[in-house]
Amino acid sequence: METLTWKQNTLFFVDQRKLPFKIVMVSCSNFREVALAIKEMKIRGAPAIGIAAAYGMALAAISSRAENYSRFVQDMEKAGKYLANSRPTAVNLFWAIKRIIQLIKNHPELEVSSLKKLVLHEAKKMEKEDVEINQEIGRIGSSLINDGDNILTHCNAGSLATAGYGTALGVIRAAFGQGKKIHIYVDETRPLLQGARLTAWELMQDNIPCTLITDNMAGYLMWQKKIDVIIVGADRITSNGDVANKIGTYSLGVLAKENNLPFYIAAPLSTIDLSLNSGKEIMIEERNHREVTHVLGKQIAPNGVKVFNPAFDITPYSYISGIITERGIINSPFREGIRNIFSKLN
Amino acid sequence: METLTWKQNTLFFVDQRKLPFKIVMVSCSNFREVALAIKEMKIRGAPAIGIAAAYGMALAAISSRAENYSRFVQDMEKAGKYLANSRPTAVNLFWAIKRIIQLIKNHPELEVSSLKKLVLHEAKKMEKEDVEINQEIGRIGSSLINDGDNILTHCNAGSLATAGYGTALGVIRAAFGQGKKIHIYVDETRPLLQGARLTAWELMQDNIPCTLITDNMAGYLMWQKKIDVIIVGADRITSNGDVANKIGTYSLGVLAKENNLPFYIAAPLSTIDLSLNSGKEIMIEERNHREVTHVLGKQIAPNGVKVFNPAFDITPYSYISGIITERGIINSPFREGIRNIFSKLN
Repeated sequence: METLTWKQNTLFFVDQRKLPFKIVMVSCSNFREVALAIKEMKIRGAPAIGIAAAYGMALAAISSRAENYSRFVQDMEKAGKYLANSRPTAVNLFWAIKRIIQLIKNHPELEVSSLKKLVLHEAKKMEKEDVEINQEIGRIGSSLINDGDNILTHCNAGSLATAGYGTALGVIRAAFGQGKKIHIYVDETRPLLQGARLTAWELMQDNIPCTLITDNMAGYLMWQKKIDVIIVGADRITSNGDVANKIGTYSLGVLAKENNLPFYIAAPLSTIDLSLNSGKEIMIEERNHREVTHVLGKQIAPNGVKVFNPAFDITPYSYISGIITERGIINSPFREGIRNIFSKLN
Repeated sequence: METLTWKQNTLFFVDQRKLPFKIVMVSCSNFREVALAIKEMKIRGAPAIGIAAAYGMALAAISSRAENYSRFVQDMEKAGKYLANSRPTAVNLFWAIKRIIQLIKNHPELEVSSLKKLVLHEAKKMEKEDVEINQEIGRIGSSLINDGDNILTHCNAGSLATAGYGTALGVIRAAFGQGKKIHIYVDETRPLLQGARLTAWELMQDNIPCTLITDNMAGYLMWQKKIDVIIVGADRITSNGDVANKIGTYSLGVLAKENNLPFYIAAPLSTIDLSLNSGKEIMIEERNHREVTHVLGKQIAPNGVKVFNPAFDITPYSYISGIITERGIINSPFREGIRNIFSKLN
């Protein structure tokens, strides 16, 4: 299944809140609908919301009534701000919006009608690039996976979290595709159960052997030596190598270190935010309390209970064995490794 | 609310699987019904299932048709084995059954009719003792709680898990009763959500400030320095101080150590199993996969997904700051501390 489909000036994707029980298609014909779908997590996953935002910008471009360049830039910046307000933590969202804005700014010589086509072309290019990047992350990361490994993953860093193939699940797909006999332990990932609903489903569709556990079982499995390696995705990586990812990732990092297990992050370079020095500077989204008190609509806690619901946490670089990117694996010292990889890009 | 009620030769208790949404009373008029209720977790919590088993033995005594001492002992040993087969991990169950059997063996001079009365009297005594023990654990443990502390707890080691008052929640109740301004973070405790359903409910009924979180948030809270101390109960403690407790406890121990936070176990001496040398010897119960794939009846994972569902884990003594018992706090070295506390009992 394709994560995103563009057809007749409309963006389509499956409502990920309903998976795997119902396949409900969402269609967005303007950028406000895209922003709302991101906010409500009908579409989620750092790379996927980046690409969705790029298409949101394309929708904004198409609907712009600007008759000259400067008004068009104004319209697009307004749409960009609106889309950027949908969720605060994953940097790929801001990265995608900035890339579109920058493209427009690089072409003041073009007519508005040409710019509109250019923006849509760029969104499509970003989608295609994301799949290629994930395949490259998979190829590179698969070198870290041994035949017979039991791999733990958290949340969904799969096909659904990206334009396709996946980051952490991309590594798993690549290793499995090479014929390595692997088995995946899937954290259910409360509160929204992306592990149980999305990751287990993706793996089962690809016939990759997997076992579902609750989040609080992962540590015990490590202690029992039932896990060989941990791989997760990322929502933002700062220039020192600290990682914001789905709530629970920090705990896995600590447990991996205590049990001498390798702990890898798989993420495209667009996830790295060079403007931030450390993870403490990352804004962590707090979401609706109902996500904790209700599971798929079923109430599980007393009426009126107080709730804390951070959607992400920070894993300091000291717990991370390596960051798998499309340009290679970054190892400690991460600040230097990240600087080097970006300096080679320019 | 009393956890257990004995009336007209019947044992009554609230079905803890339905709380806090429905108050459904369970009545057991024979020991097989008690065993089934323990197995199905209508009643749960290490001390509570010990007391329930003692009443189960009283029901077995009442229904025994034995006309002489040796046949009565046979009947009671058979009932004891049946009750002991209900759940494998919490030692309080076996402790309670053994105590009743031993009592009978100490009185070969008594008539069967007198033995029947003696067994019921002992079960009532054990229930009363358990509340007193918890109050003493609370009094002793409260010295470890400072005014203003944020306390994390896992699962339910409260009034519902015992004959009354609670172990970990007993410490919290005592500290709160002393006027200490405390706030409790409650792990929801998947899969059966004893934290969300039982602990949050108990604390709210007592007006003790609390906040519900998912299990995978606890580590991040520690990292954010939002937690000062962790207190949990125990299902079995071996002679070296290793602790079997609800799945997820091991992870909290590791996270506490990494964040230099005190991690306490609150449990009666009946939880300590001197016959085992270390936690690796404890049988860990694996429960039905449906507990993971369904939340209060609501399916959360794909059909046919493979599941691993251990109900408990082992926290090695090295992660434990102290074991709060009714005879004082046992500190490292635990083997020596445990030996000393038992030697003073005799």
